[in-house]
Amino acid sequence: MKRRVDQRLAGHHSPARMQPVPSLADIRIAHGRIAPYIHRTPILTSREIDEAAGARLLFKCENLQRSGAFKARGAYNAVLSLPDEMARCGVVTHSSGNHAAALALAARTRGIAAHVVMPANAPAVKKAAVRGYGAKIVECEPTLAAREAAAAAIVGETGAKLIPPFDNEAVIAGQGTCFVELLEDAGVELEAVTCPVGGGGLLAGTAIAAGGLAPGLSVVAAEPLAADDAARGFTSGVLQPQVLPLATVADGLTTAMSPLTFAIMRAHVQAVVTVSEAAILEAMRLIWTRMKLLVEPSSAVPLAAILERCWDAQGKTIGVILTGGNVDIDHLPWTR
Amino acid sequence: MKRRVDQRLAGHHSPARMQPVPSLADIRIAHGRIAPYIHRTPILTSREIDEAAGARLLFKCENLQRSGAFKARGAYNAVLSLPDEMARCGVVTHSSGNHAAALALAARTRGIAAHVVMPANAPAVKKAAVRGYGAKIVECEPTLAAREAAAAAIVGETGAKLIPPFDNEAVIAGQGTCFVELLEDAGVELEAVTCPVGGGGLLAGTAIAAGGLAPGLSVVAAEPLAADDAARGFTSGVLQPQVLPLATVADGLTTAMSPLTFAIMRAHVQAVVTVSEAAILEAMRLIWTRMKLLVEPSSAVPLAAILERCWDAQGKTIGVILTGGNVDIDHLPWTR
Repeated sequence: MKRRVDQRLAGHHSPARMQPVPSLADIRIAHGRIAPYIHRTPILTSREIDEAAGARLLFKCENLQRSGAFKARGAYNAVLSLPDEMARCGVVTHSSGNHAAALALAARTRGIAAHVVMPANAPAVKKAAVRGYGAKIVECEPTLAAREAAAAAIVGETGAKLIPPFDNEAVIAGQGTCFVELLEDAGVELEAVTCPVGGGGLLAGTAIAAGGLAPGLSVVAAEPLAADDAARGFTSGVLQPQVLPLATVADGLTTAMSPLTFAIMRAHVQAVVTVSEAAILEAMRLIWTRMKLLVEPSSAVPLAAILERCWDAQGKTIGVILTGGNVDIDHLPWTR
Repeated sequence: MKRRVDQRLAGHHSPARMQPVPSLADIRIAHGRIAPYIHRTPILTSREIDEAAGARLLFKCENLQRSGAFKARGAYNAVLSLPDEMARCGVVTHSSGNHAAALALAARTRGIAAHVVMPANAPAVKKAAVRGYGAKIVECEPTLAAREAAAAAIVGETGAKLIPPFDNEAVIAGQGTCFVELLEDAGVELEAVTCPVGGGGLLAGTAIAAGGLAPGLSVVAAEPLAADDAARGFTSGVLQPQVLPLATVADGLTTAMSPLTFAIMRAHVQAVVTVSEAAILEAMRLIWTRMKLLVEPSSAVPLAAILERCWDAQGKTIGVILTGGNVDIDHLPWTR
């Protein structure tokens, strides 16, 4: 599997800059490593949504995961796999979203420091979540350059290990564990699995796990049309940047893919589809009202794509990963 | 068990008007009858809420039940246990809440008509839910007398069987099945179980099941201070009416108990506690934000009582029944 990805990648990117591609074995090891610390999240179903979708959907509820998102899987795997002498100095990241909270949680479990670089204007609820797990927040200007510089400064001062949100072998292997559970617990044969794609960590882990465990199963990525770097890259075969402005309610999916996640997507993913903002909101409301689950807008993107008939899901049995539930309940998209 | 309840009741109410008291055997039969049609809802936990509560809480997620509430259990049991010749004429109720939707769903499953009497001013979302399950809505004036008269007229015209929301042996037996699953799936020994009390159907079923299956376990009922008929009745030993106005956000708990549910409570419940509106809202927000579950205000009442230290829950392992998730997401209590 590693070789296949590297061959595909060779024409596009310099292998020298590339992180190693995790294997199915890495995902299995990750699962054993993180299992004591994460929830084995339930798979839930809804007859009403199945009827609307024309498909049998098994929702893997990572919104019920610790820290409120699948990100706990990758963060725990990255933090727990650090050698002691490296872990001692702590970890650092400059994600302001779910990865930061998950990393803070994992670091607290291991008893090491977590430094999180966040823009000064980040929402108070996001800061509170990160602080609630015991991380030290370092504020900076709201630009990627400022965030990277602040993180680099912390690495220089403390020796902390940078754990990026997706462009990392251990993180991707951790995210792949979600599909392992989905397959084991489904109780029926899945014909496809679908998840959102932002930076591509979950998609990459899922695709590697699916390729190894269920080779005939389709992996379908979904993203907002307003942040469609993955779809453009999938079609063109060349890694694409996001195009500003990123006017999407799915704030978890505004990151562009990395060479690593892009290469894995190209090798193992069957389709990348895009959906409108209206479709995302409608799918989100459907999950809230029919399934009684708080999911954030990003989580609703794959269901939106099924309901909008963006791919041939009809009649199939499909695993749908609900990625997270971290929403500000005082500022919901439909009450803003 | 039946004898014990009847003895306690004798001094307070006329046995002639009393519905039969269901037994543990009735609950077991009900469970077998309804199991193919209901969800075996998951038990979820939250370390953050456990820390705030000072207790180990196992949440039985009936908000994830079909129709969005535990009421599906009682409604299915009542509808499925009707003899064919009686079922043929359909069923009727004049509850405007979760029982109506659950009864409509159960009737649709059996292929019989459901008539639901609702006040003309009932919220549109509630009407839509009932109509969505195929029931026929009959509107009336918003008084209990008008609702009862309209229901009686339907019984007279159609021969439909009246299935009340809680004052009914089959309904109570159905609600008791929730505790059976909680006990079987907990994986640890429970020291107490707690649920809200409105009309008392869930409390009665839970108390009978707990009394039979786990005699040492405490059953604790919780209700809003603003609708505290159960607490006053528990203390005085005499069935109490609700006192208007019922100014509580927990709209599912404004019904007064019946002689039947009151007698069962007196025989099998260890404590009835009351909580403030502020505590209900805080507990509800905690379940939303920490557990990522949509629950309606009534569902949050038992957690509110634990967080407010209304009873000696601290240090205990407790089953908490989250009763339902039917909220209007466009009109949340904190955005009204």
